[in-house]
Amino acid sequence: MRQITTITTDFGTQNGFIGVMKGVIWGIAPETNIADITHEIPPQNVRLGAYALWRVVPFFPPGTVHIAVVDPGVGTKRRPIGLQIGDQKYIVPDNGLITPILEDGERAGDPIEIVHLNNPAYWLPKVSHTFHGRDIFAPTGAHLAHGVPLEKLGDSISDPIRLDFSRPKKTQQGWEAHITIIDVFGNLTTDLPAEKITDFTHVTFRIKDRVIEGMVTSYGHREPGTLIALVDSENYVEISVVNGNAAKTLGAEIGDTVEVFVNE
Amino acid sequence: MRQITTITTDFGTQNGFIGVMKGVIWGIAPETNIADITHEIPPQNVRLGAYALWRVVPFFPPGTVHIAVVDPGVGTKRRPIGLQIGDQKYIVPDNGLITPILEDGERAGDPIEIVHLNNPAYWLPKVSHTFHGRDIFAPTGAHLAHGVPLEKLGDSISDPIRLDFSRPKKTQQGWEAHITIIDVFGNLTTDLPAEKITDFTHVTFRIKDRVIEGMVTSYGHREPGTLIALVDSENYVEISVVNGNAAKTLGAEIGDTVEVFVNE
Amino acid sequence: MRQITTITTDFGTQNGFIGVMKGVIWGIAPETNIADITHEIPPQNVRLGAYALWRVVPFFPPGTVHIAVVDPGVGTKRRPIGLQIGDQKYIVPDNGLITPILEDGERAGDPIEIVHLNNPAYWLPKVSHTFHGRDIFAPTGAHLAHGVPLEKLGDSISDPIRLDFSRPKKTQQGWEAHITIIDVFGNLTTDLPAEKITDFTHVTFRIKDRVIEGMVTSYGHREPGTLIALVDSENYVEISVVNGNAAKTLGAEIGDTVEVFVNE
Repeated sequence: MRQITTITTDFGTQNGFIGVMKGVIWGIAPETNIADITHEIPPQNVRLGAYALWRVVPFFPPGTVHIAVVDPGVGTKRRPIGLQIGDQKYIVPDNGLITPILEDGERAGDPIEIVHLNNPAYWLPKVSHTFHGRDIFAPTGAHLAHGVPLEKLGDSISDPIRLDFSRPKKTQQGWEAHITIIDVFGNLTTDLPAEKITDFTHVTFRIKDRVIEGMVTSYGHREPGTLIALVDSENYVEISVVNGNAAKTLGAEIGDTVEVFVNE
Repeated sequence: MRQITTITTDFGTQNGFIGVMKGVIWGIAPETNIADITHEIPPQNVRLGAYALWRVVPFFPPGTVHIAVVDPGVGTKRRPIGLQIGDQKYIVPDNGLITPILEDGERAGDPIEIVHLNNPAYWLPKVSHTFHGRDIFAPTGAHLAHGVPLEKLGDSISDPIRLDFSRPKKTQQGWEAHITIIDVFGNLTTDLPAEKITDFTHVTFRIKDRVIEGMVTSYGHREPGTLIALVDSENYVEISVVNGNAAKTLGAEIGDTVEVFVNE
Repeated sequence: MRQITTITTDFGTQNGFIGVMKGVIWGIAPETNIADITHEIPPQNVRLGAYALWRVVPFFPPGTVHIAVVDPGVGTKRRPIGLQIGDQKYIVPDNGLITPILEDGERAGDPIEIVHLNNPAYWLPKVSHTFHGRDIFAPTGAHLAHGVPLEKLGDSISDPIRLDFSRPKKTQQGWEAHITIIDVFGNLTTDLPAEKITDFTHVTFRIKDRVIEGMVTSYGHREPGTLIALVDSENYVEISVVNGNAAKTLGAEIGDTVEVFVNE
């Protein structure tokens, strides 16, 4: 069975950076299918890169290798690392990009293995100071995809860098949630798992002085233009405008608070 | 022979929606080649999605599976449908997205088969209310690509929803054509088949108070900056500015009228 | 071993032009892996298309076929050409797009073969006047990828059109370099090979009235916001702002001069 490699970066698609990474990967592992996740992470925003990767990983088959490069520390002493978490593999800079996936794996009790990618036998022969995506991450990921065991790529480590990620706070009346992702339609994903809302008819949301009473099950259940709360595709509470753009309508940004009142 | 799956959406490339669909597809049909058509259909614009898919289909080999998702009705009772039209297969929401291809197939007398994709055995185990692209369209398309017969994916139907698409109108002096597509160069495709113009030297076009006398065979036959009419790559009349941007120059938009005067 | 085909264009990703080229390619050579380099070359900018391709080619394995289409002369008499330069193959319009790669190959003494792609047996059956990317470049590239020898695609030629590309000028005090590429992070690549600077501590750069003393080895060696000079990933001198955007900070554009003073 053909295996999959994914690529997630903040490189954009203008300058050929992703194309050249694919040349390196297919030069080593010509049998792998490559899926671009996104290359439009805001430059150097490790936190949004982490969310983007974390959302998609559960839908990939066992043995997938995920290469993610949002890497403000390229060329410094930050370590490139490789991980096996459950049945998926990862190649990332050691800067917190893997934190949400790692912590999910730890909570689930998945087997976890982490190495410092310090074996230059699996890098390109010449490594630049500015493009480790091409020179280290792509070739080590490709060797992993091609069957090289993780432990050959470098020394085992146990202290990857971790970032704190936004979590909803319990309040007297319900929850303080936060916007974590804004998609191309302007939908606002929050950090509040929908399972925290037990009764969809007895809940109120307040965001930017606008109030939403109750939750609906999909966009099509209200008139176009209506501000709604619903369950998003990863089972988090989402704020949307039917056939519209909630981010623009509300002037909402990542990190903004959504107050959630659970009514008696 | 490796088979092809295409994906056409209004999802953009920022949020990983396409990447995760590829994870689902390759998890089921690892042998398929996946071609992105476009993910920049204006949000929820079924009509432009229909044009985009219709333009490219004739260039794909028999057995290609086209997954197209422009789906304002996601999560409501609108049906997901699968079609075989001639030697190509389609997975789309039942909202008119397939109309131009279906009507071409009917006019050509192609064999046509349509099913409601209501067999959950071919969906992801858990279906969200907001992302059927990942949960229904990708897996049913992948099963189709992998060899599952269309009739296994659901019940046969014969009443797909149809949209009216712009057609040129015959006038006393020639035609009233309409702009259907604006490409990245600002070229303006119309709905008038070039074969309606029998003499390229005796025809006049009027658009936005600008007049074009005659048609040319390619961009390179006039000086840069010249407003021209020519035959586009799908054999429709196109309005262009040589090495420039006709849409910006004219302030033209999709749906705008182009008057065509066939001179005696 | 699966072989690779790359595509570089100014077509954008909005209108399905690239998707349809992949349909044509995989219809002929279903076994080839396709890597997009970029489709965001500024419209009809042959010079920037040439740089984009030239930067990535060295990282592709032998036998790769590079299809590049930035083609203001489409539909005129400009020739479509195919080339073998060293162990890589190319399909391009004859307008200078291949010049930097060709001249590198000549300097290196690589074997070089060039043909005019004038054998219609390897085109699509019907060729439009406006989309040779789909009708000529994609199918000839695919046949090349599938194993057809270059000489079958058309007549041998020896006079490809060449463009002059920016070269750094030796000055009394050092060099006059020029900005050749601006990437998505706003980094400014110049045409000055880093090997011309023998001592990184005794060199001064002046760009847009700003002065940079010395060169650093990576972005992480100075504070965020600092204007720096460093070696880019292709070993050219690059001007950057740490964690910032040098192009915006300086108002710099492609072609701008960077004065380089080599200090005694």
